[in-house]
Amino acid sequence: MKVYGARVSPFVRKVLTVLELKALPYEQIDVFPGMMTPDYLKLSPLGKIPAFEDEGLAVSDSTVICEYLEERYPTVATLPTLPADRARARWLEEYADTKLMELCGGGIFLERVVKPLFFKQPTDEAKVEKTINELLPPVQDYLETQVPKTGFLFGDFGRADISVVGPLINASYAHYQVDATRWPTLAAYVERVKQQPAVVKLLQIEAKAMGQG
Amino acid sequence: MKVYGARVSPFVRKVLTVLELKALPYEQIDVFPGMMTPDYLKLSPLGKIPAFEDEGLAVSDSTVICEYLEERYPTVATLPTLPADRARARWLEEYADTKLMELCGGGIFLERVVKPLFFKQPTDEAKVEKTINELLPPVQDYLETQVPKTGFLFGDFGRADISVVGPLINASYAHYQVDATRWPTLAAYVERVKQQPAVVKLLQIEAKAMGQG
Repeated sequence: MKVYGARVSPFVRKVLTVLELKALPYEQIDVFPGMMTPDYLKLSPLGKIPAFEDEGLAVSDSTVICEYLEERYPTVATLPTLPADRARARWLEEYADTKLMELCGGGIFLERVVKPLFFKQPTDEAKVEKTINELLPPVQDYLETQVPKTGFLFGDFGRADISVVGPLINASYAHYQVDATRWPTLAAYVERVKQQPAVVKLLQIEAKAMGQG
Repeated sequence: MKVYGARVSPFVRKVLTVLELKALPYEQIDVFPGMMTPDYLKLSPLGKIPAFEDEGLAVSDSTVICEYLEERYPTVATLPTLPADRARARWLEEYADTKLMELCGGGIFLERVVKPLFFKQPTDEAKVEKTINELLPPVQDYLETQVPKTGFLFGDFGRADISVVGPLINASYAHYQVDATRWPTLAAYVERVKQQPAVVKLLQIEAKAMGQG
């Protein structure tokens, strides 16, 4: 199996976490946004990361890839069992992949890390401040009602957990932390997810990659 | 089961088509963008349509809803069987829900139908022309390579088919038709999908709703 994309992307990290939880062998190949070759665009027609190959299948979109992994390699489950729980897990993944990513990714990580370090462009600090002070609080208020006080969203650590915490890990690279006095449940949950062995392993590799970047 | 949203939305139509194919009883309740009550935002925190309720589950996002229906009511399948085919089906659904919707929805239907009829705003004809002449052709070139010359994407008519054709149905409401001389396979496929009994039934109801609007 091959996973194409930058490890620091929350979408790539989600797929890699699922592969780690399932103990499946894979190769990760660096592809960065804006460096799309015609061959890559055959794998990923929208030019997004990650793209994925397995047994002649080539497909992109992190959720599509994770659904495939869940069905093709079901031995270790990363979604809960009951249809209603699975629907809630997929909803939280979709919410994180869209709304939380827009804010933590586009509003914080892109501005404070990607633009200055990779594109030599200035940070739009007004955008970052508005994101942190106005746009992110209601999203974190909602997540505070959704995440558990102990353990994980649906029993064992799984795909919904890494989906929700992934964008917040990227915000932490930009020195943003969830305020534990205002969102105590969410802040503790984020730390719990970051201590999971699969996540620890991937974040250590990311740290090396960031240091070399 | 309750489905909240405007029937003319490709995302609502996708869910209703799956319900029709599965012959499940449901109630559809009109909710239009921009008319979101606090109660509706509890069902759909991002304020999107459709939202859905069944047996105490409340969830939004058309793909999440359809995955739930597939798992909770599996008797009639609307996805193919093999994991690799299911991955390709989900990818085409994602491609249609994002790229094709951006162009057929935002670039054509919104401008030519929603803005003048519902918001009393002028159509941005330059945007429509650019969408039709520059942005949509490469997307249709790609779809021309993906859809079948006969029958449907994965055997029986299913979720991937209505996902791909849905946005093009909305473009047809704005008098846009796929050019059958340039994209013969796609144009014939769109007509085939529109002749499926579940789609015929829903489009007849939509036509009445549009006439009353």
